[in-house]
Amino acid sequence: MHTIRPATRNKILSAAEAQFRRFGPKKTSMEEIAEKAGLSRATLYLHFSSKPELYEALLRRVTENFIQETEMLVSDSRPAPVKFRQLVELTLSTFSANPLLLAALTEDQNFSLTRYAEPVMNDYREQILGAIRHILQQGVEEQSVRKIDVEVTAYLLYELGTRLLVKALNGSSDFPLKTTLDAMDSIVAMGIIDQKPREESL
Amino acid sequence: MHTIRPATRNKILSAAEAQFRRFGPKKTSMEEIAEKAGLSRATLYLHFSSKPELYEALLRRVTENFIQETEMLVSDSRPAPVKFRQLVELTLSTFSANPLLLAALTEDQNFSLTRYAEPVMNDYREQILGAIRHILQQGVEEQSVRKIDVEVTAYLLYELGTRLLVKALNGSSDFPLKTTLDAMDSIVAMGIIDQKPREESL
Repeated sequence: MHTIRPATRNKILSAAEAQFRRFGPKKTSMEEIAEKAGLSRATLYLHFSSKPELYEALLRRVTENFIQETEMLVSDSRPAPVKFRQLVELTLSTFSANPLLLAALTEDQNFSLTRYAEPVMNDYREQILGAIRHILQQGVEEQSVRKIDVEVTAYLLYELGTRLLVKALNGSSDFPLKTTLDAMDSIVAMGIIDQKPREESL
Repeated sequence: MHTIRPATRNKILSAAEAQFRRFGPKKTSMEEIAEKAGLSRATLYLHFSSKPELYEALLRRVTENFIQETEMLVSDSRPAPVKFRQLVELTLSTFSANPLLLAALTEDQNFSLTRYAEPVMNDYREQILGAIRHILQQGVEEQSVRKIDVEVTAYLLYELGTRLLVKALNGSSDFPLKTTLDAMDSIVAMGIIDQKPREESL
């Protein structure tokens, strides 16, 4: 008799991930995943009743990890501007390490089952947006951030950050990612208008 | 004998635009365009030897208009921050009035012949990027803009602005376009870090 063990589940997810990354989820069969995991087809189906279910579980595994990390980041005691940069770094490392997540975000026809990725990616987006809002709100309270509309600003930062990440990771950016993230950091933090505060207030 | 008259060319382009907007360029035939323009098939082919050629000419007509307007904007005598906002408004009105341009930018499968749109859209992007760079450079020189990396900043502003426009125009934005553009204006201009210049320099 089969028992559902977490170790077997993880073995299946890792085997699926390797196959999906290499051939894309559309061109990978459940048989190939079972073989790669060293399991029978019957054991595989005991854990996952379909390929989309397995695919969605795989995306969930990655994003749940990310969600735990953002929650730790958001609740620690550093100033908001430091946390914001760390959130960008965390998002970057998550995408870099998980091409299937990037494929899902960009709705890549070959490496994403977009329909099944959608609920996971919506949750992922909500999580990042929530973390940005939380950090901005902290910034306004500790007065490291000026009084801005937290909701709209979070949306803008999410869109800009995601766009820069995607363009850099799929090779269509005009500049290296570090350059654009540093520039984003500087522009969002300081703005571009020449403030000349000291001269003016003298 | 046929003569190639600009009025006929424009009549064809307008007929093609109406058909492309309604049915998409893939589902529109040259026959339908000729009929819509009140011309014979022979006269149509005298001006445009293929549907892609006609499609590209149509996108060129829109973007050439935009290019002339940005050039006027860039060369007038207003301060850089005012010009920057005007450029955003001009881009917005251009996209709003031209769904085929938006379809080309977003590579909409139904309303774009992406392969033929690409050279036009690349020129369009270069034109906007050039205008932003020009305005930023003016700002640095007149000291309305702090000394930033003009190239990278132009890239960031282009990407953010385009993203906000596309999301708003295809109905996937969390906020109305005016709200996001105002927020972008404020964040890019002033930043989000609380500067408190007067208190600190007292």
